[in-house]
Amino acid sequence: MSARRDEITREAARLFAARGYHGTSLADVAEALGMRKPSLYHHIDSKEDLLWEVARAGAEAFHAALDAVPESESATARIRDALRAHLAVVAAQLDAATVFTREWRSLGGERRKQFLAERRRYEARIRDLFRDAVERGELRSDLDVDTATLLFLSAANWAYTWLRADADAVAVADRFFNLILDGMRGYATRA
Amino acid sequence: MSARRDEITREAARLFAARGYHGTSLADVAEALGMRKPSLYHHIDSKEDLLWEVARAGAEAFHAALDAVPESESATARIRDALRAHLAVVAAQLDAATVFTREWRSLGGERRKQFLAERRRYEARIRDLFRDAVERGELRSDLDVDTATLLFLSAANWAYTWLRADADAVAVADRFFNLILDGMRGYATRA
Repeated sequence: MSARRDEITREAARLFAARGYHGTSLADVAEALGMRKPSLYHHIDSKEDLLWEVARAGAEAFHAALDAVPESESATARIRDALRAHLAVVAAQLDAATVFTREWRSLGGERRKQFLAERRRYEARIRDLFRDAVERGELRSDLDVDTATLLFLSAANWAYTWLRADADAVAVADRFFNLILDGMRGYATRA
Repeated sequence: MSARRDEITREAARLFAARGYHGTSLADVAEALGMRKPSLYHHIDSKEDLLWEVARAGAEAFHAALDAVPESESATARIRDALRAHLAVVAAQLDAATVFTREWRSLGGERRKQFLAERRRYEARIRDLFRDAVERGELRSDLDVDTATLLFLSAANWAYTWLRADADAVAVADRFFNLILDGMRGYATRA
């Protein structure tokens, strides 16, 4: 991707995140870049191309962050690191994460299918981490893996609405992780 | 509100949830209702009026559901009931909950301020439930109340993306609640 193309995609992500995909026109993108619309069309074919690029780059960033979690660790540490990785992507690429999480619904046809397949694959990878942790005896044998996965994804996906770009994503992730791992019961009421 | 007005608001909620606020025109709303646009204008002044009505009704529904949680219960049971109440509103009013959670950003000026104030008040009420449970010794004295509140709200707010209208909201809420309350550690790794 050329530097100019990259700049266009970043600006599109910023506008889609701020105003929504439907609330942004290609004229807005051109104006924000100080370009004329015909020059913009020299680089891209349609607004949906930009959405697709941002959504796909978001999916790649989340998968790549998960790829970087070391296999050598305990299964529980890998869940912690996966949450750290996810929130780090949200903080570092807040616009792209917002589009990935909220605006993908405007994708149509084959692209929508491909996007949803990538998202399901990501969710399956998170589920596998929990299943693995149970199988190794690191988490409760009676753990409700589906609910644990959904709770992880809720915390991870909702973060685009409140996490700031300058947040310490590791610290935020660890606060969530410790709470989910240890629970909230008072010592007096523990079984 | 007249029956016709109510019907218009419901249809607007459905379209805003499906296509986004910016992706929906008043002509779309009129068409979906089999009305002509001038007749629609007889009932409403602008598209933002409809968004405001849906968002405000959503806020009222979430607050009212929380109001209905009995004071007589334990603080922990009130947290469980608050989550049940929230998810029941999401399931019963999926369109309004989607607009409340995702589309409110298109509100401007005074209405946006009012909406955000209602949302902050809701979040403060959830925080109070956790604080109260800690003070009564029902939850750990070292509980990170802010993170617990945020985890509750993440699970509650993300639900509009996956909860179905025919879901058993009580069962879903209780699975989340039990996980958050008891944690996930294996008995062997418990402190």
